[in-house]
Amino acid sequence: MIQLSEVITQLKSRNAKRIAVQLPEGLKRQAAEISRALKEEGFDVLISGDACWGACDLSLDALEWADVLVHVGHTPVTPEKNVIYLPFQQDIPLEILESAVPQLKKYASVGVTTTIQHAHQTKAICRWLNEHGVNAVIGEGSSRTPLDGQVLGCTYASAKNANAEAYLFIGTGVFHAIGVSLATKKPTFSLDPFADGILQEVSADRLLRKRFAQIEKAKSAKTFGILLSSKSGQARRELAERLATLNENATVILIREISEMQLRNLGFDAYVNTACPRLALDDQSRFPVPVLSPAEFEIVLGKRSWDDYVIDEILP
Amino acid sequence: MIQLSEVITQLKSRNAKRIAVQLPEGLKRQAAEISRALKEEGFDVLISGDACWGACDLSLDALEWADVLVHVGHTPVTPEKNVIYLPFQQDIPLEILESAVPQLKKYASVGVTTTIQHAHQTKAICRWLNEHGVNAVIGEGSSRTPLDGQVLGCTYASAKNANAEAYLFIGTGVFHAIGVSLATKKPTFSLDPFADGILQEVSADRLLRKRFAQIEKAKSAKTFGILLSSKSGQARRELAERLATLNENATVILIREISEMQLRNLGFDAYVNTACPRLALDDQSRFPVPVLSPAEFEIVLGKRSWDDYVIDEILP
Repeated sequence: MIQLSEVITQLKSRNAKRIAVQLPEGLKRQAAEISRALKEEGFDVLISGDACWGACDLSLDALEWADVLVHVGHTPVTPEKNVIYLPFQQDIPLEILESAVPQLKKYASVGVTTTIQHAHQTKAICRWLNEHGVNAVIGEGSSRTPLDGQVLGCTYASAKNANAEAYLFIGTGVFHAIGVSLATKKPTFSLDPFADGILQEVSADRLLRKRFAQIEKAKSAKTFGILLSSKSGQARRELAERLATLNENATVILIREISEMQLRNLGFDAYVNTACPRLALDDQSRFPVPVLSPAEFEIVLGKRSWDDYVIDEILP
Repeated sequence: MIQLSEVITQLKSRNAKRIAVQLPEGLKRQAAEISRALKEEGFDVLISGDACWGACDLSLDALEWADVLVHVGHTPVTPEKNVIYLPFQQDIPLEILESAVPQLKKYASVGVTTTIQHAHQTKAICRWLNEHGVNAVIGEGSSRTPLDGQVLGCTYASAKNANAEAYLFIGTGVFHAIGVSLATKKPTFSLDPFADGILQEVSADRLLRKRFAQIEKAKSAKTFGILLSSKSGQARRELAERLATLNENATVILIREISEMQLRNLGFDAYVNTACPRLALDDQSRFPVPVLSPAEFEIVLGKRSWDDYVIDEILP
C-alpha cells in the first residue's frame, strides 16, 4: 500500500481534521484501505471518486468539504493551497540500461527524461550511464515538472533544457518519447523498464501523417468547437478565447470530461482542443471528427504553415 | 430550433454580456446554431459541453466566465442566481387520451402526472378527461417540481399532493410511472404519447424483486462507498455523512459522474447512492456490484425492515 506515514505527520502538523484523498485510476482500488488507515489516525475522510489522470485534474471541489486534499501519484502542476502531493514511485533496476549503452555512446550528449514514477532515479540513471561511457545529462525541470528530467504529456521543458544531441526517455509506451522528439527535434530513444529494457528509436512521422490527414479533413468543417477544460491544470482560457476569434463559426465549449459521446452529442464539424494535449494524439481514432491542437487549427485556417508544426505544450 | 426571443429579451433587460448555454443531451446538437444566434445579438457565448441530464446538474462553473447561464430543457430544482431556465415543451394531441377513459372512469379520482415536456398541458389534459367522465385531479408542485402535476425521477411530491385513488402518468418509458406507484402505493397507469396512446398499468413488483436481490448480495459486502454527488441539485451531504456513520467500513466518495468504470476502479464491495435516485434503478444491471438507495442500505444493516421499503426521493 501507499506509504502514508509522512503524509500523516504533515496532516497533523497542519492540524487538519477533514481529509480528502484523490488517487489516479491505477491506484484507486487502495481507496478503502487508505480511508481506514486515516480514520484510525482520527481523521474524517472523503474519497474523490471521479476519474483522475494527473495533478492537472485536482479535485478542488473536495476542498469545500475538507481541510486538506491529499493528491496521490503526481507532482504539482499549478500552485494550490491546502493540497499535499504524494508522488508514486516505482524503482527500476539500473542494469536494464545495459543494452542501451552501445547506441547512446554515439552521441556527444544524451538528455535523460522520464515520468514521475521514475523521476526520483534520474540522477542515479545519469551516473550509471556516465560510468558506462555515455555522456548523459539532465535538464532542469519547470513549474509543471518540478523534478529535473521529468516530462509530462503536456510539458517537455526539462528535455529542451538539457540541450542535448539525442534523448533517452525511460518509461512505458511511446507517447512521451514521441513528445520529446517533437519538442526537441532530436533523435530520441525510448526504453520501457517493464519490457526487458529494449531500446527503440522513436519516430514522429506516422503521428504527423495522421495529424496531416485530420488537418485536411478539418478544412471542410463549417463549425468549430473550441474545447476549454474546467480542470485546474488544463484551463487555458485566454488561448481558447483567442482561437475563437479566428473564425466566425468557432464557439468556446467549457467541458470537463472530453469523450467521444460528448463530441458526438455536441455535433460540431471539428474541435480544437486546448485541454490535455494528449487527448487528440491518443484518442483521435475514437473521436467522430477532427480534434485539432491550437497550432493545427491555425494551419487549417491558413494562419500557420505546415513547416511550423509544433507539438502543443501547456506552458507555465 | 429552440425559441430564444423571450430569453434574449430577459438577457438584455439584465444587461448581460457574456452568456453561457447549457443544453440537455437530446438538444445539444443545437449548440452551434444557438451560439450563432446569440452572437448575432451581440452577446459573447460559451457552451457547456459536459453531459447534462437535468437542472440538478447545472454548469455553475460556467458562471465563473459568464454573467448568466441559460439552462435549456428543465425547470429549476435549486434556487440559483444568474440562471435563466428555458424549459423544453412538446405538445401532445389530447385525443390520445381516448383509449384511457374506460379504465380511468372506474376510480373515484385520478391524479394526472407528467414530466416537464408536457407539464404545460396538464390543466388541458385534466379538463379533457373531466369532460369525458374521468374525475381527473392535479396535485400541487414542489420546489423541485414547480409545475402542478410535474414529477421528476427524484421527486413525486405533486403525485402525493393529488391524494388520488389512482394515477395517470403521461410520458415516455415506465420509470416515472413506477416511481409514482412506489411513492403513492396506488394503482398507476402510464400512457406514452408517442406510442399510439396505449394505456398500461405499471407494477413495481419486478423492480422490487431485483432490489431485494441486490440487498441480499450487499449483506456480504465488507466495504461500502457512500456516493455523494458534487452536482448542485444532487448533493445530499448530510445524508451521506449520516449513512457513513452507520458502518465502520463505509466511506464517503465525492463523485460527479457515476459510471460503471469509476465504481469498478474504486473497488468497493457495494455502494450507497445519495446522488440521482434513478441511477441505481436504471443502471444497476451495468454496475459491477450493488448500488443501494439510502433505505436499502438501512435494510442491509438491519436498521429498517423490508416492509418499510420506500423509494428514494430528493426532498427540498
